[in-house]
Amino acid sequence: MKRPTMADIARRAGVSKVAVSYALNDQPGVSETTRASIKSIADELGWRPNSAARALNGGRAQAVGLIVRRPARTLGVEPFFMEFISGVESVLSERSYALMLQMATTLDSEIEVCRRWWGERRVDGVFLIDLQADDVRPSVIEALGLPAVAVGPPEVSGPLPAIWSDDGESVHEIVRYLAVLGHRRIARVAGPPELAHTRIRDAALREACREAGIAPATVVHTDYTGDAGARATRALLIAPDRPTAIVFDNDIMAVAALSVAQELNLTIPADLSIVAWDESPLTQVVRPMLSAVTRDIAAYGASSAEALLALIEGEEVMDIREGYARFVPRGSTCPPPDRRPV
Amino acid sequence: MKRPTMADIARRAGVSKVAVSYALNDQPGVSETTRASIKSIADELGWRPNSAARALNGGRAQAVGLIVRRPARTLGVEPFFMEFISGVESVLSERSYALMLQMATTLDSEIEVCRRWWGERRVDGVFLIDLQADDVRPSVIEALGLPAVAVGPPEVSGPLPAIWSDDGESVHEIVRYLAVLGHRRIARVAGPPELAHTRIRDAALREACREAGIAPATVVHTDYTGDAGARATRALLIAPDRPTAIVFDNDIMAVAALSVAQELNLTIPADLSIVAWDESPLTQVVRPMLSAVTRDIAAYGASSAEALLALIEGEEVMDIREGYARFVPRGSTCPPPDRRPV
Repeated sequence: MKRPTMADIARRAGVSKVAVSYALNDQPGVSETTRASIKSIADELGWRPNSAARALNGGRAQAVGLIVRRPARTLGVEPFFMEFISGVESVLSERSYALMLQMATTLDSEIEVCRRWWGERRVDGVFLIDLQADDVRPSVIEALGLPAVAVGPPEVSGPLPAIWSDDGESVHEIVRYLAVLGHRRIARVAGPPELAHTRIRDAALREACREAGIAPATVVHTDYTGDAGARATRALLIAPDRPTAIVFDNDIMAVAALSVAQELNLTIPADLSIVAWDESPLTQVVRPMLSAVTRDIAAYGASSAEALLALIEGEEVMDIREGYARFVPRGSTCPPPDRRPV
Repeated sequence: MKRPTMADIARRAGVSKVAVSYALNDQPGVSETTRASIKSIADELGWRPNSAARALNGGRAQAVGLIVRRPARTLGVEPFFMEFISGVESVLSERSYALMLQMATTLDSEIEVCRRWWGERRVDGVFLIDLQADDVRPSVIEALGLPAVAVGPPEVSGPLPAIWSDDGESVHEIVRYLAVLGHRRIARVAGPPELAHTRIRDAALREACREAGIAPATVVHTDYTGDAGARATRALLIAPDRPTAIVFDNDIMAVAALSVAQELNLTIPADLSIVAWDESPLTQVVRPMLSAVTRDIAAYGASSAEALLALIEGEEVMDIREGYARFVPRGSTCPPPDRRPV
């Protein structure tokens, strides 16, 4: 335990501890030469003000928290989290804020962690992610007095500021594109139905199909794993009147669909068009490269962190709407078989 | 700001603050009935001992740190980190320890973060990952007095306890397997050459080829991205005397290789055998499923956390050797063309 103390600095500088305290807290009582010499010794020894002492004096924890409540096996595969975290970090590290990360398995344990973090002054605020329809967390956290931003749509953020992108816009863009290519039977392999953004996509898909004058899309909800995505795709493709285009709610399920098509001897995109949501390195290493919606997830993380720090500073923070994910056609979409010249 | 205080509890219980302090600190001075009633009110209000006050009294930060120094774009794709973190969390959360996560771009900034965390008493210890040959971090961190475990081989962990798995064993197993199938020209698309475990695999590969009586394997180092993996694979496959088997140092590069084979009209595994290191959900959603080495990364994270907490408790911690990654043949390996019946 070699953490340097003010006493160590005093000993090395040959001055009193009081002089060291004056010098390091920028108070009068020492000459400028002594102050400079003490500061340089403090620096050399690696001395830092004690965060515990600062927090006790009404200061801040200088940390914010993120609790992730998803099965570990899906977490590892989805690039979203690490990209989001890297964006968050880019803002936090500039302001010397730390990120506390915790995984939770249940809603109750997630709320308990928030309560403990805040009660023990371990964090100054938290990010809420994976918002659900009828999510109780925003009101519980508001009641705790814990500063928080909801990384999700304002419909479910309750009293908390929402940082969100309009998934409905992206759904409309995809459906318009597929309809113009001539697709009339579209399906979607979706994420968990309890997530708010899954529901928003569900509703937008119904509306977009109606507007395009095509049959309502079949939607199969999954847990986001590649296995579940493959099963859903297989079920859609062996059904009568199989879809000519399928939209996937994440990248790993879209990649799994390539394998299912291969099993069933279907060629992508000639026999089936595939759209992935979000584009990732994964969607670009496979062949054909997947047509996908793309957005800047790191920028989303950075905005979320900016908003949370502003809230902690006591500023008023309004809902922030990020740019929506844009559709980028690559190699996995084309007109359906009956619309191509023979 | 509604963090409950001892005064709130005293008011609600109709007792003095001193009585609350006695009750919550398990000191004599209150009856057992009063103690129980005070504790139940404290619980109801969500009161927690203040971590800042505890830390100042010589207690612990009750947090450990992990600094990740890799480009964000590769982080998102590699399942390793999230799986490792989920294993770490499984141990930390049981002991009410928090994980501080930080991304760094340079070695200097990584060391600076350690210094600051420790100086400010934000962490009680850290995990060191991605150890390099001639890594300066173990000795710098030892000099700080900051408890730390090296998640890497003992050759480079210096004064720190190493938690490692013997990659050399796995290399030998893969090469023996491929040699028995009849492969004589093996190549490897490797990770960054500065990482200690890349060098260990390099050396083991030379030795294993010699022992198997086959030509030294060609090794191409990359930055772990799918793009770099694809380029390396393409270069190997268009060279004269192309390899009949390629081993990849991560999953995304092995998946990218499937696409390159397809470009060049090669069938996997008939024309080329592929081995991925580590198995992941990704290596199992593609077709053919990839033959891969597999290990329990979450268990590796859990052991690392156990070791770090033991070190923080002042116990002596020795190097810990985890089980090595085992080769699991799936659909991407078979005998080379000249060894199969026509």
